[in-house]
Amino acid sequence: MPMTPEEVRAFYDTHRTVRQYVTHEDGTSIPLPAEHLDVILHAAQRAPTDATAQLYSLVRITRPELRARIAELTTNAHIATASEAFIVCADVARVTRVLEATGHAPGEWPAIAVHFGIGDAVMAGTNLLTAAEMLGYQGCWIGGVMNGLDGIITELGLPAGTLPFAALTIGRPAENAPYRPRVPRPLVIHTDTYHVGTNDEILSAVEIMNPIASRGGQPGDWASLMNAYFGEGGSMAKREPGLRAALERQELGVVS
Amino acid sequence: MPMTPEEVRAFYDTHRTVRQYVTHEDGTSIPLPAEHLDVILHAAQRAPTDATAQLYSLVRITRPELRARIAELTTNAHIATASEAFIVCADVARVTRVLEATGHAPGEWPAIAVHFGIGDAVMAGTNLLTAAEMLGYQGCWIGGVMNGLDGIITELGLPAGTLPFAALTIGRPAENAPYRPRVPRPLVIHTDTYHVGTNDEILSAVEIMNPIASRGGQPGDWASLMNAYFGEGGSMAKREPGLRAALERQELGVVS
Repeated sequence: MPMTPEEVRAFYDTHRTVRQYVTHEDGTSIPLPAEHLDVILHAAQRAPTDATAQLYSLVRITRPELRARIAELTTNAHIATASEAFIVCADVARVTRVLEATGHAPGEWPAIAVHFGIGDAVMAGTNLLTAAEMLGYQGCWIGGVMNGLDGIITELGLPAGTLPFAALTIGRPAENAPYRPRVPRPLVIHTDTYHVGTNDEILSAVEIMNPIASRGGQPGDWASLMNAYFGEGGSMAKREPGLRAALERQELGVVS
Repeated sequence: MPMTPEEVRAFYDTHRTVRQYVTHEDGTSIPLPAEHLDVILHAAQRAPTDATAQLYSLVRITRPELRARIAELTTNAHIATASEAFIVCADVARVTRVLEATGHAPGEWPAIAVHFGIGDAVMAGTNLLTAAEMLGYQGCWIGGVMNGLDGIITELGLPAGTLPFAALTIGRPAENAPYRPRVPRPLVIHTDTYHVGTNDEILSAVEIMNPIASRGGQPGDWASLMNAYFGEGGSMAKREPGLRAALERQELGVVS
């Protein structure tokens, strides 16, 4: 360190979302060597944090039966085969304990808790994943946690004030995942004022993104993929009630 | 690449939260060289994203008057002096445009929008900051955006479906910021089941964290700092109504 711009670009261009990992011959997962695990956990904890409060927890899933159960709840089989699998959680329970243990009364800030709790959790999780990539591993964030939030909260014994953000798997890649397209910069990185983008710009972006949606050699249709997720009756609309229920269960819902 | 575990640890141990930056002699900010800016923006866009949707926007603040206005709204003067300053935003407006521009009807998923929008925004922002650190810069996340959300939304012309998460400043450090303590690992990284932690463990963690709260040579009192933020009548409780109002304004509130 420091690295050259070319080295930094090259590093970030090695990132792949990988779901197929090197396993034992019988398909069981190969844990990270202790030294590598220690470094990626250290990196996670060196992440910045709002108000020094470290409003997150990572739950490392080690028991094979629990890996299988979480794989089932999230509909993501690779949770069982990855070298490491974590549930990355917003956590304001711990800072609440700190207050109560030192004679202070916690305030009321559920929307702030979700905002900065997810923020801190994702900063730590991103450090963990990036550190693993520096060591030569690859990984995958798993939003499918949203499909089984209630079950995961129960299985892990997550107290009120904690909320799973997503799962994160790490391992040696056993697939050549492709380099993915991204929306053109002017629509994502704005200068001083938000640039709404013309219809032509939006449609050009869709063309550029189409390959990400291709399956089995068929041309990709990114707009249809976005509709499957974000359209009326799509998977995000289906996940919404479960997330609201989890927020209520975990005392993180905004009660008017 | 790959790096050794020692190199990875050393890299993450160089991270400092830095608010004082090298400026021109008259105190005005020195923008990043174009090549460095390009690389850190590229790194931001290489971040993972939920459902391939890239549910975030970064607004790069360049005009001095706007830097000053945002510094005032956030009560963080270094927004004006940093080489680069960004407002990091959750953004589901763009994917909604994609749906509408391609003849699809968007679904209803405000809690999911905040969840994965903040997630994508923080992944991109963390990539940007880490890439900048690889180049030898340091930076600072600014939660003080919560103090002026309404004004920032207006100043930047942020449409419905977008929400500022925080600001992020980058520059050459002009201070020797200290290496900060962190809560002991067993309270943050759990194995299979959430470890609630005994009162003794919590109080030990407070002792370890105390130096982070020290000011002007006085011993630090982390529990009091946490109370100032998270206690009854503290700054987070004061920020809660403004965040709820912004969520409503930006059509991201959960309406029962």
